[in-house]
Amino acid sequence: MSVATVTTASGATWQEVAADRQAHRAATLAAIKPALPDLTSIPLNTIPLAKEFLTEAEIKITESTVEELVPQLAIGKLSAVEVANAFLRRAGLAQKATNCVTELLPERALERAAYLDAYLKEHGKPVGPLHGIPISVKEHLAMKGLDHNGGFVAWVGKVPKEDALILQILWAAGAVFYVRSPQPQTLMHLETSGNLYGVTTNPYNTTLTSGGSSGGEGALLGFRGSILGIGTDIGGSIRSPAANNGVYGVKPTVGRLPISGWLSAMAGSEHILGTIGPLCTSLEGCKLFIKSIIAGQPWLREPSLLPLPWKEEDAYKGRKLKVAVLWDDGVVKPHPPVTRAMKKVVEELKAKGHEVVDWTPYKHDEAWAIIANLYFCDGAAEDLAIMKESGEPLRPLSEHILKNKHVQNHTMASLWKATQKRDAYRTAYANLWNSTATSRGPNGELQGMVDAILCPVGPGSAPKLDTSKWWGYTSQWNLLDYPAVVFPVDKVDPAKDSAKVEYTPRNEDDKFNWDLWEKYGAEGYKDAPVSLQLVGRRYEDEKLIQTLEIVKEETGLPYVKYV
Amino acid sequence: MSVATVTTASGATWQEVAADRQAHRAATLAAIKPALPDLTSIPLNTIPLAKEFLTEAEIKITESTVEELVPQLAIGKLSAVEVANAFLRRAGLAQKATNCVTELLPERALERAAYLDAYLKEHGKPVGPLHGIPISVKEHLAMKGLDHNGGFVAWVGKVPKEDALILQILWAAGAVFYVRSPQPQTLMHLETSGNLYGVTTNPYNTTLTSGGSSGGEGALLGFRGSILGIGTDIGGSIRSPAANNGVYGVKPTVGRLPISGWLSAMAGSEHILGTIGPLCTSLEGCKLFIKSIIAGQPWLREPSLLPLPWKEEDAYKGRKLKVAVLWDDGVVKPHPPVTRAMKKVVEELKAKGHEVVDWTPYKHDEAWAIIANLYFCDGAAEDLAIMKESGEPLRPLSEHILKNKHVQNHTMASLWKATQKRDAYRTAYANLWNSTATSRGPNGELQGMVDAILCPVGPGSAPKLDTSKWWGYTSQWNLLDYPAVVFPVDKVDPAKDSAKVEYTPRNEDDKFNWDLWEKYGAEGYKDAPVSLQLVGRRYEDEKLIQTLEIVKEETGLPYVKYV
Repeated sequence: MSVATVTTASGATWQEVAADRQAHRAATLAAIKPALPDLTSIPLNTIPLAKEFLTEAEIKITESTVEELVPQLAIGKLSAVEVANAFLRRAGLAQKATNCVTELLPERALERAAYLDAYLKEHGKPVGPLHGIPISVKEHLAMKGLDHNGGFVAWVGKVPKEDALILQILWAAGAVFYVRSPQPQTLMHLETSGNLYGVTTNPYNTTLTSGGSSGGEGALLGFRGSILGIGTDIGGSIRSPAANNGVYGVKPTVGRLPISGWLSAMAGSEHILGTIGPLCTSLEGCKLFIKSIIAGQPWLREPSLLPLPWKEEDAYKGRKLKVAVLWDDGVVKPHPPVTRAMKKVVEELKAKGHEVVDWTPYKHDEAWAIIANLYFCDGAAEDLAIMKESGEPLRPLSEHILKNKHVQNHTMASLWKATQKRDAYRTAYANLWNSTATSRGPNGELQGMVDAILCPVGPGSAPKLDTSKWWGYTSQWNLLDYPAVVFPVDKVDPAKDSAKVEYTPRNEDDKFNWDLWEKYGAEGYKDAPVSLQLVGRRYEDEKLIQTLEIVKEETGLPYVKYV
Repeated sequence: MSVATVTTASGATWQEVAADRQAHRAATLAAIKPALPDLTSIPLNTIPLAKEFLTEAEIKITESTVEELVPQLAIGKLSAVEVANAFLRRAGLAQKATNCVTELLPERALERAAYLDAYLKEHGKPVGPLHGIPISVKEHLAMKGLDHNGGFVAWVGKVPKEDALILQILWAAGAVFYVRSPQPQTLMHLETSGNLYGVTTNPYNTTLTSGGSSGGEGALLGFRGSILGIGTDIGGSIRSPAANNGVYGVKPTVGRLPISGWLSAMAGSEHILGTIGPLCTSLEGCKLFIKSIIAGQPWLREPSLLPLPWKEEDAYKGRKLKVAVLWDDGVVKPHPPVTRAMKKVVEELKAKGHEVVDWTPYKHDEAWAIIANLYFCDGAAEDLAIMKESGEPLRPLSEHILKNKHVQNHTMASLWKATQKRDAYRTAYANLWNSTATSRGPNGELQGMVDAILCPVGPGSAPKLDTSKWWGYTSQWNLLDYPAVVFPVDKVDPAKDSAKVEYTPRNEDDKFNWDLWEKYGAEGYKDAPVSLQLVGRRYEDEKLIQTLEIVKEETGLPYVKYV
């Protein structure tokens, strides 16, 4: 049943293919026991639905963190089966509330969980560091025997022979895969809207987007239909949904985590590289996820990866942080709730004696021009051809990104020039960071540099549907390949965010964004999570995570309760 | 004077430009004191010329290793000026014997050396770990204020405003730059023949090539006109000249050493990446070179590099080596002296209890097809255009490589397919290596794998001029981005290598190579150094060097005296 037979290749229309995929999804939801409720109406904020329809035991499990579940599963205090059942139920409810699932996997998940329970009983020890932990998976990643369409109608019917490498490693570590989540058409939206599964909304405010492209994961996590999910990110696709749903999300440096087995148009394109990473309700869970994968020596099987074990060393050894703050990228000014959240974090850091300096953005508009040009080096021909093949129409945000003014059909000569521009920009930015040094060590090494950049994740909280157009706050760090982590800080609160701000936009993108605030105001974005981003230097993934641990400890964030 | 005014841009013919560059070179040689001798004839083996024309003190200095000079220079037992003078003289003589220099830099070098001597006197300590060490530099690398033509006539007249990053770091470590060496037209020969400076020959047998593209370095090192030089390698360009001249050469993994400031056609092409590395008369010197550069934190200024300090850890901790031997790549069979050298090393390793297994080559012909296709993704249009610009004719080996059957003018779509092929090959080779594991560790990690592959550097010793056509033994490891080190083992000896070998070639390339042996025999390659190559896994640069240290210690190689 999971293998699609209604496909455009077999002569079906795109609408028939989509209807069949949705029917398949509905069937997987119908298989959940006890049965999921039918929602007669969907509230603006869907979070309270869980308390209404789930048992106390289910709520307790699904509102635990990964680090709380791991030890209980490892000794059998919780069974893998009861944990899997709880998450299947809550993920099903999340689907009904926000449309964030492509299929549930009750049969596979419960069989796996039962195996794990039996293993623990027989051997007296867990199979690995993630024994029994349910992990939600973006459909982008191959799963053996399941449809793998990458969000394109024309690709329905592809069935991988093996799991993506990251899933193989997580499996060996004890994971339970129980739900798959959608991605937008082309994967290149900061929202999640496609012709196969429709539009995913934000569980905190269903007039808003859950973000994207890993926005199925985002909504699942925000609703606690998952507490650990896998996303992918080439321009913000882990960070936007993590931020929009008030959870943690890590985009590691390229080359740390294995990506083989993900499906995308333009395979072989390496001018800008994407990464894979966790969305999680806790920072500790993100770290456990990354460490478990790295422990599996993925570089031996995916040779583009770096053979770097996870570094446990303390990057600070008791010294204070030096954090730079990018208040505004100089292109699109953030909405007031974002600035309010940044101010609060900065105040708290300063109060604890940490050094906070301003970061002057260096040509972020040019950075966007460079990366937008290198995303689609064939002028988006392949993407367009795949959609043409099925006849599915382009979604508005596909139009926005595939046909933006920076896209060109490159020749080799123009590609190499564009690559040199990219490299020159990277070098200039590295020198900018170097210029924050205050001294030199005994061997001439730079000292006293900024440890991390604190900045917005986007020019607002979770946006209204189809309005997520400015990628600059996230794509900047893909262009530079700097690791970045997003974290929940606050929520939009009309009581705090309604003061009128006079502002004259600098350009069209800025105007588009500011007009949205003028139009909807705090009331229009009510309850939307407000998250921030911390960015480290290339390959300093470990230090970045540690920096956020310190920031959290020192500032006490998040400042509101989410669930 | 060093800045060229006779250029094709100023209206000169390519012959006039070349004549002017050669006149410039002659002038720099004429400035050496005491004056260099005029050679009335050049012997087949030029090595004895040094003893004939240099002083005992000069010979002693220039036949020292880097690790012998460093401590003497650091305490002023030798002055940097006398060391620089000795190398200027011997490099000048090397030029007269083998045509391996584009210019000497007596003024710069002696001023620098005098500064270093004064510094030492004043501060009582050296400026850095390479205080006073003369380093020869391939013209490929930018040097402030000096012509930077990259081997193309049309490019004569380019003058960089700053030194290549690697030179800046070596300078800070105390190096003295005193000579620049040529590269072949297009940089893409395994020999060194160009229209600007002519053909570089092999100091051990002037009917042979010194290799390439760093063949100026190779001949300089073989003659001891240098004991430490900088080469660059995208298909064998460090290793071929190191091997042909009986010295050590290291091609590190891409991303360890900085390359910014090198000049090449198709800048921005990143489908196959080149590296930079040392040629040196000692392995210890190679290591000191690499460590000194890495200590300069090059990744802060060249963001594509990895922030990996040099790992000092012992990869073996007393256990024996497990070495795989690639006797023949299955495409072009090596000449008998190479096989003789491999047998000897293998016997010695086995005698010391090390494990030696055969390595079955995996489609090395396909590997060549992949890399030869990705070298020139524009169908070599840019290279051809640069040569057309000056009217200089293509050298035979430029024809050979630019117009080989695998070259194509890619579209984006065909480029991405070719890139996927490359990646699939890399994955298959990684799995091949994984398959040598004999057990799994407590976390499932592979154990007991091969530590390194021992193989030829080419399908013979130093080749006859214009016959270096099969790159497979070196380009294989560029395609895979595995670090590789070459080392001197023996020399071609008619007394040992003249036995008739019956062999029927497998293909055209094999026939071309075997016919050369049939035609010239051991006598035709007399005295040519025979070197071998050790290859490690990606990023295991430190382990690879340590492996060769053990191999050297256990086998007592090299088995002959070179100088």
